[in-house]
Amino acid sequence: MTDKFIKSKAAVAWGAGQPLVMEEVDVMLPRKGEVLVKIIASGVCHTDAFTLSGDDPEGVFPAILGHEGGGIVEMVGEGVTSVAVGDHVIPLYTPECGECKFCLSGKTNLCQKIRETQGQGLMPDGTTRFYKDGEPIFHYMGCSTFSEYTVLPEISLAKVNPDAPLEEVCLLGCGVTTGMGAVMNTAKVEAGATVAIFGMGGIGLSAVIGSVMAGASRIIAIDINESKFDLATKLGATDCINPKHYERPIQEVIVELTDGGVDYSFECIGNVDIMRSALECCHKGWGESVIIGVAGAGQEISTRPFQLVTGRVWKGSAFGGVKGRSELPEIVERYLDGEFKLDDFITHTMPLEEINHAFALMHEGKSIRSVIHFDSSDQ
Amino acid sequence: MTDKFIKSKAAVAWGAGQPLVMEEVDVMLPRKGEVLVKIIASGVCHTDAFTLSGDDPEGVFPAILGHEGGGIVEMVGEGVTSVAVGDHVIPLYTPECGECKFCLSGKTNLCQKIRETQGQGLMPDGTTRFYKDGEPIFHYMGCSTFSEYTVLPEISLAKVNPDAPLEEVCLLGCGVTTGMGAVMNTAKVEAGATVAIFGMGGIGLSAVIGSVMAGASRIIAIDINESKFDLATKLGATDCINPKHYERPIQEVIVELTDGGVDYSFECIGNVDIMRSALECCHKGWGESVIIGVAGAGQEISTRPFQLVTGRVWKGSAFGGVKGRSELPEIVERYLDGEFKLDDFITHTMPLEEINHAFALMHEGKSIRSVIHFDSSDQ
Repeated sequence: MTDKFIKSKAAVAWGAGQPLVMEEVDVMLPRKGEVLVKIIASGVCHTDAFTLSGDDPEGVFPAILGHEGGGIVEMVGEGVTSVAVGDHVIPLYTPECGECKFCLSGKTNLCQKIRETQGQGLMPDGTTRFYKDGEPIFHYMGCSTFSEYTVLPEISLAKVNPDAPLEEVCLLGCGVTTGMGAVMNTAKVEAGATVAIFGMGGIGLSAVIGSVMAGASRIIAIDINESKFDLATKLGATDCINPKHYERPIQEVIVELTDGGVDYSFECIGNVDIMRSALECCHKGWGESVIIGVAGAGQEISTRPFQLVTGRVWKGSAFGGVKGRSELPEIVERYLDGEFKLDDFITHTMPLEEINHAFALMHEGKSIRSVIHFDSSDQ
Repeated sequence: MTDKFIKSKAAVAWGAGQPLVMEEVDVMLPRKGEVLVKIIASGVCHTDAFTLSGDDPEGVFPAILGHEGGGIVEMVGEGVTSVAVGDHVIPLYTPECGECKFCLSGKTNLCQKIRETQGQGLMPDGTTRFYKDGEPIFHYMGCSTFSEYTVLPEISLAKVNPDAPLEEVCLLGCGVTTGMGAVMNTAKVEAGATVAIFGMGGIGLSAVIGSVMAGASRIIAIDINESKFDLATKLGATDCINPKHYERPIQEVIVELTDGGVDYSFECIGNVDIMRSALECCHKGWGESVIIGVAGAGQEISTRPFQLVTGRVWKGSAFGGVKGRSELPEIVERYLDGEFKLDDFITHTMPLEEINHAFALMHEGKSIRSVIHFDSSDQ
């Protein structure tokens, strides 16, 4: 049997540090256990920019980036049973196979079933589904949502309520879930707790929302860019602090402000010095700090062990500890029930053809999220 | 009203780095909320040696050391209601007042009610109960069990079943509870879990016992002194590893040995490099590492944040997370029920007059615990 292809427009990253280029690529139809998805919308995330910059040691080129999408199943490969043509889906860069040691543990969302090939930009069978003039183009984070059509393993798709606008819930494919989930799944913040959140980008703002949903009594937002404070406050932050206004370390300021420290803290930047501040602003005896941000290669966190021996806990979170297939649909329902809004995050929308502008806005700190709207005329 | 005194023999630490000196001291009878305890037995712990060495930045002299004791209430001060003359008690260097923010949180055993004065070698009213020729002698860790008679705040005494031999359960006043509690209270090791324990001193061996009690399926004991392995194995360790036999970092050896790492690890040495090894030998996705050992002043722990973001948890434990007054009596009951033994830990017994020999044995690595038996002829 010969593989068949369809044409798709896509923004291709031909090399590190270069602008994306609009191309018409050939997408191979899904093989066994795979699904062809028509992407309706995709957020542009800092992680895409990180890989495009060339700093990502795992980055491979040429590739089709994008990992925060929403789409509709166009075709299913052999053996696919959990999604059908027409289903609305959110691609998952952290799949959920339900069979590996990690999934079976019940203790983590870090399914490892296809980690190795996904990290190499390949489908689980070791090949790609994207081609240009017969030459393969790599996948990215198992998603490649900067393409009108993309192919994913069945285990990498969360089927969600079709009532949810994909132009908004695509953000649940990465940033928003990461921040909210870190608060609710990883830290399990309880009603009345005090919280400090470092960094008011998309993830930090999502952590603010998660803290509000959890019933936190005090939500301290920390950023050196005060232009973020209006939205942080609107979303529910009770205090906004700019560390530049203090000569003392920010952890000391927070400990004093909260009579001993916060119950929970979240680092949403990726700065190892801030990770230390986030730990040390926690309350002796029980404070827990969650690292969400991704630090540069080779960087290390440090503290005195006394911080831990006296009861603080240091942990981390990836994709908010959320199991994509079993838990993300429920988060979409909570969104539909009005428990939280997503439109505050979407500062810009644009067609795929303008995607380089989205990267520029992000670099200039002028956007929270730009969302790419794929052409919907043919739906 | 004038304070009254009784005579007591005691081993006094007159200064850092000097042998203890047997003295007849004057012990002031208990004031309000205080209790006079006749010490029956006391373990000699590394922490006593650490302070005696002069390396402890909080160490003050002259002092009466000792914090791992068992005794009988001899007299109670005004207002004391929770213990009565004749009760068997274990002194607590971590008290439990039941009223402070820490006790009320339910999340920690680190009662802070008298922390400040205790750290200065004083009773809560800012004075001492020990005198020699009219000059005050400092208390130590709120216990000072190297004295025939000592005075403690009521909140620093756990009342235990008088059927328990104080010459053995005195070890529950520090080391054994610290190791067992870290496994059962702090980490909450569950049946079937895999465990790695670094350092086979008294605390590490107690962590082995705690792991057996928790039903761990695999208990890996790590030490560079193989003479510890016989007892570790007798107590329940399933594997004994000497890192010196490997060229690779020990965490890599353990990860390989356990198909990805252990579920829980415990650092029982106080070495910041080993603390890192203990974290990094934990399983991705859920492994938890508990720091029990006390590192030297100013030393720091480090790791790559990726270790935490991929699901490992770093925490610490003091006195095993055990709330002394509400939980230690139950541990004594479990001892009386035969759930664990203490005699394996007691390698030497001797009268108070030979206490410097106990320190020498410890320094030479020849003892697990020496227990001082006070003269019992007058009971």
